Amino acid sequence: MAVILGPNHYGKAGIRFLRVVREADRASIREFKVSVMLAGDMHGAYVTGDNASVIPTDTQKNTVHAFAARYGITSPEAFGLLLGQHFTTSQPAIHSATVRIEEYRWIRMPAVAASASHSFVREGAETRIAVVRCDQGGAAVVDSGVAGLAVLNAAGSEFRGFAKDEYTTLAETSDRILATLVNGRWRHERRPSPGDNAVDWAVDWDGSYAEVRGHLLNAFTDTHSFSLQHTLYAMGKRVLDCCVDVGSVWLSLPNLHHVVVDLTPFGIANDNELFAVSDQPYGLIEACVGRVGDNKFVTGDDPMGEG
Amino acid sequence: MAVILGPNHYGKAGIRFLRVVREADRASIREFKVSVMLAGDMHGAYVTGDNASVIPTDTQKNTVHAFAARYGITSPEAFGLLLGQHFTTSQPAIHSATVRIEEYRWIRMPAVAASASHSFVREGAETRIAVVRCDQGGAAVVDSGVAGLAVLNAAGSEFRGFAKDEYTTLAETSDRILATLVNGRWRHERRPSPGDNAVDWAVDWDGSYAEVRGHLLNAFTDTHSFSLQHTLYAMGKRVLDCCVDVGSVWLSLPNLHHVVVDLTPFGIANDNELFAVSDQPYGLIEACVGRVGDNKFVTGDDPMGEG
Amino acid sequence: MAVILGPNHYGKAGIRFLRVVREADRASIREFKVSVMLAGDMHGAYVTGDNASVIPTDTQKNTVHAFAARYGITSPEAFGLLLGQHFTTSQPAIHSATVRIEEYRWIRMPAVAASASHSFVREGAETRIAVVRCDQGGAAVVDSGVAGLAVLNAAGSEFRGFAKDEYTTLAETSDRILATLVNGRWRHERRPSPGDNAVDWAVDWDGSYAEVRGHLLNAFTDTHSFSLQHTLYAMGKRVLDCCVDVGSVWLSLPNLHHVVVDLTPFGIANDNELFAVSDQPYGLIEACVGRVGDNKFVTGDDPMGEG
Amino acid sequence: MAVILGPNHYGKAGIRFLRVVREADRASIREFKVSVMLAGDMHGAYVTGDNASVIPTDTQKNTVHAFAARYGITSPEAFGLLLGQHFTTSQPAIHSATVRIEEYRWIRMPAVAASASHSFVREGAETRIAVVRCDQGGAAVVDSGVAGLAVLNAAGSEFRGFAKDEYTTLAETSDRILATLVNGRWRHERRPSPGDNAVDWAVDWDGSYAEVRGHLLNAFTDTHSFSLQHTLYAMGKRVLDCCVDVGSVWLSLPNLHHVVVDLTPFGIANDNELFAVSDQPYGLIEACVGRVGDNKFVTGDDPMGEG
Repeated sequence: MAVILGPNHYGKAGIRFLRVVREADRASIREFKVSVMLAGDMHGAYVTGDNASVIPTDTQKNTVHAFAARYGITSPEAFGLLLGQHFTTSQPAIHSATVRIEEYRWIRMPAVAASASHSFVREGAETRIAVVRCDQGGAAVVDSGVAGLAVLNAAGSEFRGFAKDEYTTLAETSDRILATLVNGRWRHERRPSPGDNAVDWAVDWDGSYAEVRGHLLNAFTDTHSFSLQHTLYAMGKRVLDCCVDVGSVWLSLPNLHHVVVDLTPFGIANDNELFAVSDQPYGLIEACVGRVGDNKFVTGDDPMGEG
Repeated sequence: MAVILGPNHYGKAGIRFLRVVREADRASIREFKVSVMLAGDMHGAYVTGDNASVIPTDTQKNTVHAFAARYGITSPEAFGLLLGQHFTTSQPAIHSATVRIEEYRWIRMPAVAASASHSFVREGAETRIAVVRCDQGGAAVVDSGVAGLAVLNAAGSEFRGFAKDEYTTLAETSDRILATLVNGRWRHERRPSPGDNAVDWAVDWDGSYAEVRGHLLNAFTDTHSFSLQHTLYAMGKRVLDCCVDVGSVWLSLPNLHHVVVDLTPFGIANDNELFAVSDQPYGLIEACVGRVGDNKFVTGDDPMGEG
Repeated sequence: MAVILGPNHYGKAGIRFLRVVREADRASIREFKVSVMLAGDMHGAYVTGDNASVIPTDTQKNTVHAFAARYGITSPEAFGLLLGQHFTTSQPAIHSATVRIEEYRWIRMPAVAASASHSFVREGAETRIAVVRCDQGGAAVVDSGVAGLAVLNAAGSEFRGFAKDEYTTLAETSDRILATLVNGRWRHERRPSPGDNAVDWAVDWDGSYAEVRGHLLNAFTDTHSFSLQHTLYAMGKRVLDCCVDVGSVWLSLPNLHHVVVDLTPFGIANDNELFAVSDQPYGLIEACVGRVGDNKFVTGDDPMGEG
Repeated sequence: MAVILGPNHYGKAGIRFLRVVREADRASIREFKVSVMLAGDMHGAYVTGDNASVIPTDTQKNTVHAFAARYGITSPEAFGLLLGQHFTTSQPAIHSATVRIEEYRWIRMPAVAASASHSFVREGAETRIAVVRCDQGGAAVVDSGVAGLAVLNAAGSEFRGFAKDEYTTLAETSDRILATLVNGRWRHERRPSPGDNAVDWAVDWDGSYAEVRGHLLNAFTDTHSFSLQHTLYAMGKRVLDCCVDVGSVWLSLPNLHHVVVDLTPFGIANDNELFAVSDQPYGLIEACVGRVGDNKFVTGDDPMGEG
């Protein structure tokens, strides 16, 4: 029996970006993942290798970026309609366009700090962690922690003055997106007295967790950042300065790179407003901040375990 | 060179459970994942196969369950200390115990319904979705949706009167945990008039999303459930009854099974308070609820795609 | 407009099991994940909460297990037809049944050992890893490793004589499935001579990797196991006995529990042939095997990092 | 107590690339993921925001790419030593460098086709799938399938002559990497005769699967590609031409983009040999190839479900 082309479509999936809207004294952000699928008269492309009706998926990605910058995004649905209408009117061969949009919800950081007007936290994705070690004889160590707490500063972050060598291509910047997933642990240590035991250790653990989490967020928001290392140290130091019962703080901060999209080929300015988001590769900064004289620093999961 | 055993430990990881505390007119819940690691004098187990000092990891799991039921959980840290002390004093060969606890945060459902005192929602894990289809000529369909919205009812759920055959072992119940991840889509359809186009379609999409999401949550909370199918239909019907612009609703609801842990071997009662949580297998209920006369029901992702 | 039930189906997803066929001197295994979806006249279940036509998803799981044991599995397709026909002829309300089956491919362990006739390895899932540390001054350490190498022994594994306490419910066994994902690292150390440097370190790394991997597999296959600890030590010792250049071996072995399915309610014997497979909870055994006099044991990723 | 910086390190994780070595009549490939972590005297970066000793993680990525192109990769271990020595001798402040390398194993396509000398398949990652639908009355459909079968052509792939518009920036190419994960389903249909039933349907399903899988691989290897659409159609047509029992073939092919790394800043030529690998965004081509007169084409999972 003769072979024919059946139902078909093609497009670009996984187009991720962050859009920043800047006002005089504050910024707003929204993050999306967009996929486009086009269908129509594509017989030539499949059967004879004739690409005359094929809008490359790379062009689809460019279009999504350009539209996001040019028209903004009032809602996922409205943005999908805008894109869908564009593609169905751009080429006679494109009979229908399907656009799928996922939005990741960021909320403004609670306004404990002046700079919170440019700081954001992702809703609810974090996990609270406790790692407890008990030894025969009654000694115990409690490491409380958090994983996956996503935060972002849309202002107040520089990266300049770094070492240069023959492999350096990165430009210095005095204004970049600073975003990370806070993975941290902080240590409570207890040296037993004769006759008591670990379970008698009376601490308001839920209250302690909320307090340390708040200091981490506030320090991230407050600090004018010269590097993610610099911000990390400020976060750890803030906890130790404010919480006398915490012995040391370990932080593992992936640098979630946000790259300014080049829209000049389309005659669109991009003044640090539209950023492509990617997972890999990513910078990774890990350090412990402790107290002078301490000799048992807290550590976390193996730094390269998931590298 | 002679071979020796170096540093070592063993234990049970991934012990997941939900604990319900029931009061006269409301319930509280907390969900945890616990891992236990024991270390000490384990030379015999490794080198000669002598298990006399090995507490089986199955026993460790039992102990975690029994302690959760017997002592309750005031905080992850305090529960870790309780377990850690137990293991380090249970066998001379166990020199240290490390307990890692992750907590998944549930919050009480906003009190729109009388039964909200037994209903909960997981913080922030959901994704908002829009799938837009445009056709040449101006016709457009917008499917708004949500994925991964975790909800749980600790009361008001039965499952009885089902079909029995030779493979039936499930007991009927008039009181079970009902938990699911709401994955839904609801359809907005627009038939174009001459001269207008899809992008002129004026809807407050953000407001519409919030409204439908609220109806889904409220119907889940309100409905005294005879099955997850029954609850699904009530959720879809509520949206259609309240939102005249929505044409049909598709819902895909995995049944997240919570199994009552049998604690009778340890002399502990378990009156529907401690439940083991597992990912697989899971029931999956998928249906569309629509309007009489409609002939284009919304559908979602392939039901078995990830099965 | 009146509301109606649209297209719908329901069923059990993620039913995972391993089937062992035992012959006089060898075993064969196949592993599957099955999902069942039923559709038909389910109006009552959704609209009025009448479950009379609902075959519980728990019964569907039982049926899959019972059919796997009673009829065996010649191919995923044939097993799907068997199940599909059963469900469509079991209840008048069930008009169609869709069965999705995924098979995970195990191959017989290369016959280097007498017991290989009961030993298997999963095709291709492993990742090769190298972690290299260089210091100023020229010292270097190379840890080669493997992650995710799935192996299974269908015979030759016992677990008896372990410690019992009030929380013990596990029965002793002299015949169980032993299955794990081998995650290992082994250390090569180099102390520099004046004038040379790390990159001059001449080792056939690809050959070394293949050799160590082979010893790990052979020791897993050869060892009559009294516990996973016991097997772990035998694996590490084999590498050190055979590879003089390896200083120490770290192994992290999750115990992938295979639970014998109870088929007695259906009048079917299950003589260690049908096993339910689950991911969580799992035992986790981690240890280093080294050489006397060594003081720098290799370690791996944080044991509880993903717990 | 005074606060101090404790143990720390930083670097770039998740640097993924493919390296092609081209000879007269064949190519060889290896794929890696590299992470670099540097430690030393980083006090200034953390405490005062002085970046003078910080090698940006972007530079580390450049260095990995440049070294891969300049020196090649004989083994993960040797490449790690090369990189580690470079970083520890590049800046006095860098006291140690740890390099983690994961290798993903590609094997040469079995030599059924002349062009197999440039074609590769990833070992063992695929899943075999069967989706069976039975109806009351005895009608049955069997869709056999495969998911996650990774293939790559290092030659014989063009992409030219496509539609251009104001958002086009992609250059035409007559030599690119063509890589995809084959996700496919093919349909067997059976119309029942009176008195028989679905389970009597005698097909050698294992043999049929192996045969179709072989045709898909061979057509991928054989076809001089003008687009992924073009290759998709050739793959489907090959199956239908060779397997009379297959009614239609659905293929979902993500276009796994491999971008030539620009090494000109480092004075290194890159003649289509070093490619960065990323997951998102990706092109996605989906189509059914069927037989004239057929009216029930097979489809697969929802195309945008995971988009």
